[in-house]
Amino acid sequence: MSETSEQRDLTTKKRLMEIAKVWYDQMGGGDIPSVTLPSRTKYNIEYDDKSEVWKYGDKESTRDAKSAKSAIHMLKMAYVMWFIKMQLSENRSSTLREMYYISEGWKQAAFHAQNESNYLVEDLEIITNLQRECFHMRPEEDGASMFGPIRVRENTRRGPKTIHCQDDVGEAGYNIPNNVENVELVDHDATCVIALETGGMFSRLQENGFDEEYNTVLFHLKGQPARASRRMLKRLNEELGIPVIVFTDGDPWSYRIYASVAYGSIKAAHMSELLATPSAKFIGLKPSDIQRYNLPADKLSEQDITALKSELTDPRFDTEFWKKEINLQLQMGLKSEQQAFASHGLDFVTKEYLPDMLSEAGVLKR
Amino acid sequence: MSETSEQRDLTTKKRLMEIAKVWYDQMGGGDIPSVTLPSRTKYNIEYDDKSEVWKYGDKESTRDAKSAKSAIHMLKMAYVMWFIKMQLSENRSSTLREMYYISEGWKQAAFHAQNESNYLVEDLEIITNLQRECFHMRPEEDGASMFGPIRVRENTRRGPKTIHCQDDVGEAGYNIPNNVENVELVDHDATCVIALETGGMFSRLQENGFDEEYNTVLFHLKGQPARASRRMLKRLNEELGIPVIVFTDGDPWSYRIYASVAYGSIKAAHMSELLATPSAKFIGLKPSDIQRYNLPADKLSEQDITALKSELTDPRFDTEFWKKEINLQLQMGLKSEQQAFASHGLDFVTKEYLPDMLSEAGVLKR
Repeated sequence: MSETSEQRDLTTKKRLMEIAKVWYDQMGGGDIPSVTLPSRTKYNIEYDDKSEVWKYGDKESTRDAKSAKSAIHMLKMAYVMWFIKMQLSENRSSTLREMYYISEGWKQAAFHAQNESNYLVEDLEIITNLQRECFHMRPEEDGASMFGPIRVRENTRRGPKTIHCQDDVGEAGYNIPNNVENVELVDHDATCVIALETGGMFSRLQENGFDEEYNTVLFHLKGQPARASRRMLKRLNEELGIPVIVFTDGDPWSYRIYASVAYGSIKAAHMSELLATPSAKFIGLKPSDIQRYNLPADKLSEQDITALKSELTDPRFDTEFWKKEINLQLQMGLKSEQQAFASHGLDFVTKEYLPDMLSEAGVLKR
Repeated sequence: MSETSEQRDLTTKKRLMEIAKVWYDQMGGGDIPSVTLPSRTKYNIEYDDKSEVWKYGDKESTRDAKSAKSAIHMLKMAYVMWFIKMQLSENRSSTLREMYYISEGWKQAAFHAQNESNYLVEDLEIITNLQRECFHMRPEEDGASMFGPIRVRENTRRGPKTIHCQDDVGEAGYNIPNNVENVELVDHDATCVIALETGGMFSRLQENGFDEEYNTVLFHLKGQPARASRRMLKRLNEELGIPVIVFTDGDPWSYRIYASVAYGSIKAAHMSELLATPSAKFIGLKPSDIQRYNLPADKLSEQDITALKSELTDPRFDTEFWKKEINLQLQMGLKSEQQAFASHGLDFVTKEYLPDMLSEAGVLKR
């Protein structure tokens, strides 16, 4: 956050121009212009000991302008770079969807599907080692909302806004903007952040005053977390030293939510260092909790079983804890939701389960 | 908003007790207890001239305790009434999902699927003529967010919070809580509210300063609008007299978004008077705009075509405007998105399209 947005724009322009310069030099030297990128699959993600996150490994693919198809791909990349440079100069921004539509006017370089343009923007992130936020590109998706003892200063287009995320907001909390880099973390009084999968649990903890009793920040992930949410969790952890706790449903899709928070996602492994919070702790709902707490449960569907099996070969889940829990779940054939704790009354989750889990996680000293 | 929450709770308890009293009297008089409810399909919604919204018609179905199945249904209703009464007495609230799990302990009255419990809560809304918010039941879904020249006072569990939806919030806007009845509309300086389907368009109008230039409230519907969003739009229109404009994509699903805002939804037709804003104007994206503005378009899918045809038999779309546009769309076989205006540049929508449409709608005087 020490960098101003002007400095960020300058760095970004410079890095984009470096790509063009490489092509220029390649052509000047009689070579065919090319770009080289890591291969982006789960077979090419590796654990990085230093940063403790999963990143792309050594497998690479090179794209050069030898064939018409590849040449058009590079033409598209050049157009996107031009478009981003224009945005930075005019201090504009746009959604990934808008850029896709704008490409309609780029003749041969027009995109045929939005996947294609999104993927190209990710490629540029990898090459420049910058987030798409630096390109002034934003996704459709919102960030999460948060509620708790923390004060932020958001540098909006209409000037800075200082907001205390308990005192200055309504019950639905502070809405995290797309570009988290515009948010300064001013001060806080939090013992931990609890990232929650569902809105129902967010409201439950708020109604039960859990944020006040334990000084926790309630963080509503809204399902599979947007990048902005993951980046915000990372910054809360890294800049303020607040422990991050993840509390989701007990099914394979929820474990992926945790994995993308803690380990980084496969699709955005190039951003793992910025987005992943390796110290984030998963406190449930675990398959073993279904028996331990006698929770109402549903049968696993075919898709659930396939997803669980796929997780057993996902390097991010290659730990004793996950292997044990996932195998147990496959044996039981059951899944359960975080709101299932309500079967023991509306207070059980805040009076029993969470205090126990937070103590086990070492966040609460009792 | 003149009623306090204590008064609201008292009224709610009284109405619930009236249901029980009817059953009690039926049994005392030697009759089998029963409930009668309107039939809830598109074949039983009728236009109400006075309120200008679509409501349930005269078709009714009666459920009595003659068979074991119906008796168990009424037992479930009794349990839910007991649960709601308990919530009101203890000043608690819960999600529909939590109540479903709590019913696990109700033995024979336990629900087998959440649809069943949601439907029963809707039945109770119809019988009591009260919103589920009065029962302290909340959905999973969030309300929308809004950004513009309006000041609200939200009466939260932690006391009242006064928030100006432009000055006191970040770029993601004010997050509308589940229970809009807790929000007072304090004052405003708005010429209209623009309800937007996508987050991309919400950010576009904000970045382009459209809310400042035309004093509009930007209202992000987030797809099919939650009840809280529809109720808020209704209140902005009714209490403050602000015109409501709806701007969506140009496909059958988007027309349903508009219909649920303006005419009321089929599923919640008993709430139409509280939720529907009959004067809400649809300004596009219209099928005729695809030609008029030469917009990038996609082919209609099979599902799109089926949905469009179903709209031709939906009484809410039985107007000259909709018949013309829907038939035109079926002829063209094309659909387009609101962000497709970006193909004419990032300013086209705020400099050309919206000013034209708002003038045509009589909201802007130029």
